[in-house]
Amino acid sequence: MMSVRYLTAKLAQQIDEELMNVTGAFSLDQLMELAGLACAQTLATVYKKETHPRVLVCCGPGNQGGDGLVAARHLGMFGYLPTIWIPKPGSKEIYKRLQAQCVNMKIPVIPPSSETGPLQNALNESDVILDAIFGFSFKPPVRSPFDSALALISESKLPIVSVDIPSGWDVEKGNAAGVGLNPDVLISLTAPKEGAREFKGRHFLGGRFVTKAMEEKFSLHLPHYPNFDQIVELLPTTDSQKL
Amino acid sequence: MMSVRYLTAKLAQQIDEELMNVTGAFSLDQLMELAGLACAQTLATVYKKETHPRVLVCCGPGNQGGDGLVAARHLGMFGYLPTIWIPKPGSKEIYKRLQAQCVNMKIPVIPPSSETGPLQNALNESDVILDAIFGFSFKPPVRSPFDSALALISESKLPIVSVDIPSGWDVEKGNAAGVGLNPDVLISLTAPKEGAREFKGRHFLGGRFVTKAMEEKFSLHLPHYPNFDQIVELLPTTDSQKL
Repeated sequence: MMSVRYLTAKLAQQIDEELMNVTGAFSLDQLMELAGLACAQTLATVYKKETHPRVLVCCGPGNQGGDGLVAARHLGMFGYLPTIWIPKPGSKEIYKRLQAQCVNMKIPVIPPSSETGPLQNALNESDVILDAIFGFSFKPPVRSPFDSALALISESKLPIVSVDIPSGWDVEKGNAAGVGLNPDVLISLTAPKEGAREFKGRHFLGGRFVTKAMEEKFSLHLPHYPNFDQIVELLPTTDSQKL
Repeated sequence: MMSVRYLTAKLAQQIDEELMNVTGAFSLDQLMELAGLACAQTLATVYKKETHPRVLVCCGPGNQGGDGLVAARHLGMFGYLPTIWIPKPGSKEIYKRLQAQCVNMKIPVIPPSSETGPLQNALNESDVILDAIFGFSFKPPVRSPFDSALALISESKLPIVSVDIPSGWDVEKGNAAGVGLNPDVLISLTAPKEGAREFKGRHFLGGRFVTKAMEEKFSLHLPHYPNFDQIVELLPTTDSQKL
């Protein structure tokens, strides 16, 4: 069996566009809902709510942050106690709606601040982090307030679940610059990104909405999702078959 | 523990509106995606693809039909072989997009016809039916072409999974008129409807997006969804506690 394809940033962008163009016909609402659900299910698979109830969901300003907001809502539904850190809320209408849905669930949102204190306090009261800060459109360098935030999050030594690409990593070159997070778990969406080749932790795939035709067009060689799950773990045996 | 509340058509409508108003902030895309996924997972829980691979998804022209289209897509992703019967496609833009997503998956759609032949042929080649014809806004009587369709579906003796309320049933009075389907499985969305009180088969609940505040406001007494599932089976013990 061919190994799953690792995507360049450009290819990831192209697949996203094809999913949402006139032919693909998906709305961002749909894709984000399924992606965020997959993120929440991944965290819940690895960190049980009995041992890791308090999840700090860190959201960037882009679509990745939207995935984080969807995940926070589902984690709340699953019985976790999420808190959202969202220093630069996205300006898109969907972003505001997703945030409102979390507020309706009474999920606390840390007020934006130029100080690191509020994030530090939240880290002190969390059991695990969902990192939805930067996605596949991230370009270095990491800018304020995220530069100091990544350092604080790393220093916390809390377990980290990263969405799509660990924040601070180059989407294609990985953590060569050494400023990125070192997550324990990664949930790649649609297909893993080039930069994730060097990732050594537990690696899941989500985004069960890619048609066979699109999978073949882009030679994705996606693994088989079990039963009716929305996530599949990429096992080391598959990982060792990297091209 | 209080028994789950059975909703009138008016209350079901009100809850739907609150979910999607400015405060609730959900889009129809989001709710339909989660509802349709719950329908697909319910069918997959009861009828395994090894024994019941060929699913005839029967869609009405309203939002219920949209749930059916989402379910058909997910069933295709799960490895089933769905076919869609959709004699009166909805006119909403979302409906067209959901249908396009199924076409992209190469899910066959039976061409609309004033004859019963195409539906009969499809029934002959199916193992189980997903009934997404009428939802909680249905008012009797059943009109053409659905009147003859319900009769054909019943005569097929195939197992039926109905969405929200079995098609042909009055949302509040049930199958008193006797023209409705007799499904083996029912997946109620958000909360069961009054008419479903008399339903005797396996009864599931989906729609894990109702906030605690809304649950309390409407005294829904929803059951506890297990783990990170999107569906929960309403067991007879709960059922016997009906108010």
